[in-house]
Amino acid sequence: MDEVIADFLLKHLKIYNENFNEALSIADLQGTRLWNFRPHIAKEILTYLDDPTFFSDLRVIDDSQEVIRELHKHYEIFIATAAMKHPASFTAKYEWLKEHFPFLSDAHFVFCGDKSIIRADYLIDDNPKNLKRFIGQGILFTAPYNIHETGYVRVNNWKEVSAYFLNEKNTTKSL
Amino acid sequence: MDEVIADFLLKHLKIYNENFNEALSIADLQGTRLWNFRPHIAKEILTYLDDPTFFSDLRVIDDSQEVIRELHKHYEIFIATAAMKHPASFTAKYEWLKEHFPFLSDAHFVFCGDKSIIRADYLIDDNPKNLKRFIGQGILFTAPYNIHETGYVRVNNWKEVSAYFLNEKNTTKSL
Repeated sequence: MDEVIADFLLKHLKIYNENFNEALSIADLQGTRLWNFRPHIAKEILTYLDDPTFFSDLRVIDDSQEVIRELHKHYEIFIATAAMKHPASFTAKYEWLKEHFPFLSDAHFVFCGDKSIIRADYLIDDNPKNLKRFIGQGILFTAPYNIHETGYVRVNNWKEVSAYFLNEKNTTKSL
Repeated sequence: MDEVIADFLLKHLKIYNENFNEALSIADLQGTRLWNFRPHIAKEILTYLDDPTFFSDLRVIDDSQEVIRELHKHYEIFIATAAMKHPASFTAKYEWLKEHFPFLSDAHFVFCGDKSIIRADYLIDDNPKNLKRFIGQGILFTAPYNIHETGYVRVNNWKEVSAYFLNEKNTTKSL
């Protein structure tokens, strides 16, 4: 969800810049995370996520709605999100999905921690840690912090996801 | 979670009896669900679950804590619960698990809908529907409404779960 369909970083950076009167941009965070870039205040930066509304108004990542709507015709789509580290986020995440992806059934939402519990043919994820224990085909979705990761099938945006899946339509795969 | 480690029915029946001045017991619900037994008010009965506190104080099913604590030494345990039909329940369910199963990591909690997304070697569930699409070994946990179901490995209580798993200890299976 975060960094794949929901623009977590943009909001996080905005709150950080406001609170610390800085003007950090995504360009400053290539290959790293905000909390690693400012390790002395990492704990404080992470508390932003405990605000139950933090996840309410994240921008939708470009083209994700259109591509998932199209994929949905050919694949069984689940949205799995690592929500357990921030239990305050449950309701906001659920409502965000209902708002922006109304064509998906909530029976296909999965709030989890360790994604090794996911059984699917493909997993599109920004976090290599999640892909490592996944037994299907992992696909790394580019996010600023993961640009130096190698050894994964990588997609840079949803147009590339579309090309990856819709060039070889297959109605029985789940995503 | 419900009817396997959390005594959903006891609480549901209590509220129902209070609201309708009845004295239904579990004996009345053998082979059925409360909302099927009282179909004309099914909708109202189900709204009880939309109360965010409904799931807060469910009784822990007998022996589940002790047996899961023991299984936890030999198996990788996940708790998967069909929470998406009642999004108001997320927080209460999370806190209930943290309170009664503090030895489990919340990274191993899964709030989902359709459990076909679960990858595990075993699934202990009260609902045959969840077991049907599960690709590992399904185990039906007896609940009043499922007593007439056949065709599944059945356990009647956590002592039987213990016997099933701990007689053939295996450290690599996940549950």
